[in-house]
Amino acid sequence: MSESQKVSELGERSLISALSRSFKNSTNPDLVIGPGEDDCAVLDISDEGYLVVTTDMLHRKTDFPDQMTPWQIGWMSAAVNFSDVASTGARPIGFLSSLGISPDTDVSFVEEVSKGMADCAKECGTSVIGGDIDTHDELTINGTALGKVKKRHLLTRRGAQVGDKVCVTGFAGSAGAALHALFNDIEIPASLLNTLFEPYPRVTEGQKLAQSRAVSCMMDTSDGLALSLHDLSDLNAVGFQINESSLPIQYEVLNHVTDDQDELLNFAMYTGGDFELLFTVSPDLLNKVQNICCLTVIGDVVDQTLGTTIIRGDDTILSINRKGYLQL
Amino acid sequence: MSESQKVSELGERSLISALSRSFKNSTNPDLVIGPGEDDCAVLDISDEGYLVVTTDMLHRKTDFPDQMTPWQIGWMSAAVNFSDVASTGARPIGFLSSLGISPDTDVSFVEEVSKGMADCAKECGTSVIGGDIDTHDELTINGTALGKVKKRHLLTRRGAQVGDKVCVTGFAGSAGAALHALFNDIEIPASLLNTLFEPYPRVTEGQKLAQSRAVSCMMDTSDGLALSLHDLSDLNAVGFQINESSLPIQYEVLNHVTDDQDELLNFAMYTGGDFELLFTVSPDLLNKVQNICCLTVIGDVVDQTLGTTIIRGDDTILSINRKGYLQL
Repeated sequence: MSESQKVSELGERSLISALSRSFKNSTNPDLVIGPGEDDCAVLDISDEGYLVVTTDMLHRKTDFPDQMTPWQIGWMSAAVNFSDVASTGARPIGFLSSLGISPDTDVSFVEEVSKGMADCAKECGTSVIGGDIDTHDELTINGTALGKVKKRHLLTRRGAQVGDKVCVTGFAGSAGAALHALFNDIEIPASLLNTLFEPYPRVTEGQKLAQSRAVSCMMDTSDGLALSLHDLSDLNAVGFQINESSLPIQYEVLNHVTDDQDELLNFAMYTGGDFELLFTVSPDLLNKVQNICCLTVIGDVVDQTLGTTIIRGDDTILSINRKGYLQL
Repeated sequence: MSESQKVSELGERSLISALSRSFKNSTNPDLVIGPGEDDCAVLDISDEGYLVVTTDMLHRKTDFPDQMTPWQIGWMSAAVNFSDVASTGARPIGFLSSLGISPDTDVSFVEEVSKGMADCAKECGTSVIGGDIDTHDELTINGTALGKVKKRHLLTRRGAQVGDKVCVTGFAGSAGAALHALFNDIEIPASLLNTLFEPYPRVTEGQKLAQSRAVSCMMDTSDGLALSLHDLSDLNAVGFQINESSLPIQYEVLNHVTDDQDELLNFAMYTGGDFELLFTVSPDLLNKVQNICCLTVIGDVVDQTLGTTIIRGDDTILSINRKGYLQL
C-alpha cells in the first residue's frame, strides 16, 4: 500500500483483510481462529471448551436512524454481537459495552440504551458484565460479546460440501425492505419495522444446530445473503445454486412494500441487517435439523466451477453478484 | 434520577455506578465479578480457571495528544486494557480493537496504529485476535483485552487487611509530570515522555505477584494513587497511611520538571496515566514479593477510622483527597 493512499480508496473490506493478515504474523498460543477468518475469534480456554468473542462499533450517523428509540439502539448494539456468537453455536456468557456520549445527553436516554442492551443480553441467557463511558460528540457504542462452546460443537464458516443443502433461519430481506419503506415513507406494520430496529439474535437456534452435529458450516446474514454466500464460496471452494422461489419473503414485505419479483429478489439477496443464520447441511441429515428450528432450504452447494447463481421463477439462471451490506 | 438530568450534571463515576447497579439485577450463571466491581469482569469458564475481560474507549480529543505518533496511539489503546488484566494476576490471551476512522485517513496511519497495538499485545505474550472498522469523524479506538487466571490466583480489589503493607510498582506521578511538561513547554527526555505516551502494562509483575499468593488485593493506578487508595478504602473498609518520603518519584521528574515537594506530591497522588500496580501485602510475606519484582513500599493499611492520609516530610499528616484521573 502506498504511503498516501486513503482509507476510502482502499475500502473497508480490503483494509480489514490487510490488517488481519498483519495481525496473523504474531504467535498466540491460545488462538484457534484468528482475525478476519470468521464471525468470532476462537480461543482455547480449557480441555473441553472454546471461548468465542466478537466486537462491533456502531454510531449514530450510520447505524441508528432517528426513528429508533434509545431502547432499540441499546438492543441492536447487543444483538449484532450476539448474532456473531450464535453463528458459532456458542452459548452467550457475557456482554460488554463502551458508550461514547455527549455530556449534554439526558441521563434517561443513557438508561434506556442500557436497558435495551440488558434486555437483549437477558434474552440471550446472559447479562451485561462490564463496560466504559467516554465523552464523545457523536453517540458511539462499542459492544463485545462472549460465548462458550464445547470443542466438538464449534461451527465455523468452513465445512460446506458439494451436495449439501443451503438453509436459512427466518426471513430474507425483511430489514432491507423495512429500511426502503422508511426512506420512501411507505407505511409498514411494527412487525416488519422491528426486523430492522430489533433484530433477534438466533442464539437458541445456533446452539441447537451446533449440538445436532448435522451442520457443516454456518455464518450470519448481517451483510446480506449474496455477500455471505460469496464469503462461504471463497472459503470452501464451492459454488451455490439458490432457488428464487424458495427464498423466505416475509408476508408483510409482499403486502406493504412490493410484490415486484425483481425488487423482492434485491431485498432478499443484496440488503443486510437480517441477522439470520445461513448454514449448510448434508441432505441425509436434513430432517434432523428441520425438527429443531424454523428454517427454509433455499438451494444447494454445487461445484465451484458452476459459480454462485440463482434460478429464477422462469428457470433462467442469474449470477449472484458480490455486493450487499446494508449501510443505514 | 430525574428525566431531564444531563450526563454532565450527574458525572461519569455516578453514571457508571448507577448503570452497574441496574446491570447487576440480571442473573448470569457464568459471572463471578460483575460490572463496576473491579478492573475486569470475571467469568467462570472451567473447573480450573477464570476468564477476565475489560473494555476501554479512547478518542482523539481527550486521550491522544497531537504529539503522539500513530504507533503510540495503538500501543496505548492496548496497554490501558492489558493493565486492567494485569491487575487481576491473569495471563493475557487476546486483544480486540474497534477503530472508528474518517474515510480520508491515510492507510499508513491505520497500519501504524495497528502495529502499535500488535506490538503491545506481543509484549504482553499474546496478539490481536479480532476487531472492527467503522467510519467516524473523530478517531475513536475501543479495545477489549482478555486474560486467563487459575482460580486460586485471581487478585481483586478486595482483601486488604489492617497491618498490610501498601506497595506500588514503578514510579508515581511520571505520566502526570510529563503531561504538565507538555502543556507548559518544558523540555523533558524521551524516558519521561514515554511514561505518558507508551505506558507499560505490568502483566509479568501481575502474574508473578498473583502466583506468590502473598498479595491481599490489587488494582492499577490509572486514575491516580489518591483515587485508587480511596476505592480500596471504600471496598475494604480500611484506611491508608502513606509516607511522602517513600513515594517513588522518577529521577527525570525531579531533574527536568520540578523539585518542589508540593508539586511532586500533587503529581504522585492526584494525576493518573501511570498504569502501575497498587497492592497490599501482609508484612511477614513482604520479602517474598520483594524478590519477584521492582516495587516500593509506600505505607500501611490502617483502621478505617484513621482515614486515608499522608505523612509529610515534616511529620505533619494530611488527608488524601478523593480526586484524580488524568484527563488528557
